[in-house]
Amino acid sequence: MSEFKINTVLVTGSNRGLGFEFVQQFVNRENPPETIFATCRDPEGARSQELKKLSEKHGNVIVIQLDATDSASINAAVKQVEKHLNGKNLDLLINNAGVLNPQSLETQTAEDMLQVYNINVVGPMLVTQAFHHLLKRPGEESKAKSAIVHISALLGSMQEVPKLFSHFPVISYRCSKAALNMLSCCHAVGYKQDGILSIAIHPGWVQTDMGGSQAPLTKEESVGEMMKIISSLNETQSGTFVDHTGKLIPW
Amino acid sequence: MSEFKINTVLVTGSNRGLGFEFVQQFVNRENPPETIFATCRDPEGARSQELKKLSEKHGNVIVIQLDATDSASINAAVKQVEKHLNGKNLDLLINNAGVLNPQSLETQTAEDMLQVYNINVVGPMLVTQAFHHLLKRPGEESKAKSAIVHISALLGSMQEVPKLFSHFPVISYRCSKAALNMLSCCHAVGYKQDGILSIAIHPGWVQTDMGGSQAPLTKEESVGEMMKIISSLNETQSGTFVDHTGKLIPW
Repeated sequence: MSEFKINTVLVTGSNRGLGFEFVQQFVNRENPPETIFATCRDPEGARSQELKKLSEKHGNVIVIQLDATDSASINAAVKQVEKHLNGKNLDLLINNAGVLNPQSLETQTAEDMLQVYNINVVGPMLVTQAFHHLLKRPGEESKAKSAIVHISALLGSMQEVPKLFSHFPVISYRCSKAALNMLSCCHAVGYKQDGILSIAIHPGWVQTDMGGSQAPLTKEESVGEMMKIISSLNETQSGTFVDHTGKLIPW
Repeated sequence: MSEFKINTVLVTGSNRGLGFEFVQQFVNRENPPETIFATCRDPEGARSQELKKLSEKHGNVIVIQLDATDSASINAAVKQVEKHLNGKNLDLLINNAGVLNPQSLETQTAEDMLQVYNINVVGPMLVTQAFHHLLKRPGEESKAKSAIVHISALLGSMQEVPKLFSHFPVISYRCSKAALNMLSCCHAVGYKQDGILSIAIHPGWVQTDMGGSQAPLTKEESVGEMMKIISSLNETQSGTFVDHTGKLIPW
């Protein structure tokens, strides 16, 4: 997407892990976005202090409360974002917030299935729906595009199940990421006419609270690579599933 | 699966649509199963009267109350099935119960997402978990297999989204069927050591309450074809996604 200048971006789950790393790398860009909406469930909580400090240091980082599973919270966030944008578009939405609970075929419960689906799939569905009017580009001729990035996972690939199942059964997580990949495809096709691209990215196995310390990739490496993909997004990649290096992953 | 003699089978959502057709076609086989556990949420309800009649006429059709979203109901059903089986195995589980609500990107709600996921994915997860010990084959040398059939849908295929999205956005249904396909893969790999096969089948677009009257396939045709697939299931097909004619569908 050679025309894709990211002036405005919103990141969910941005107080830690990959979300916080995205905000930091946007801030440190040569041409940083005018506004980075860094959203999280509890901006005043102990685990949001680093983000708060970053926002105090950089005027373009706007911290906003957003719980992706709570419509009222999403609607309030939309109003704040609209006010800040003041008629401008949102160029990029990164649906990053997600959860992984270790469950096997034996231990998997209904409650966990529904909770993980609610956070990992229903959340991105609601958030994207609520910010759609800000992402939408007027007129079909416009070459400017917006984009939705869904942070997915290799464990959501059906084709990869035989390779990784014995080490990572994680049923609720796998099912949610397969469903998220479907949602991403629906966004790619359904929002094409609005000039919105949608892509599902596997960040790699990363040293975060979710990935654990034995993961091979640092947050810096993973997000650094994903930033390259995002900065050069184009229509042919919309509706695909790629890893952090941009390599296509089979569904 | 040349060794696959279906002596005992359990079908969910068997009071109407494809489920009822499965029961009918099992009954009318040249060598019908010894026991067909025909389960549904409300065996005494108005919409279960045809099934009730079939069961009165055929002693091998055992109607059992089972709500796949209710653990207590599932556990009670397991106890009844165990009693009838009296030490025998369950050869085949058909996770057929499912729901489709017409929702677009604009109209999709969180409540519907969760409800559809609960019925279409969490239900099959719970039911399979609860009947696993009856499907499980002792000893690795045993050539006898059991099978789990997940009634999935072409609309759960990521690769097919561009072709069918404009006519059938059905977000909650699509996401649930992609997740169900993942569950089927997990069953195929996770239960391989137990001698259990798992396959996801797209029944085609069928004239049922769900498919509507404009659908090109009759229930008889769809289930007739699926019965052929099921009767010849083998290990190479476990973990795949096929249509009613047995043709592989891309994820």
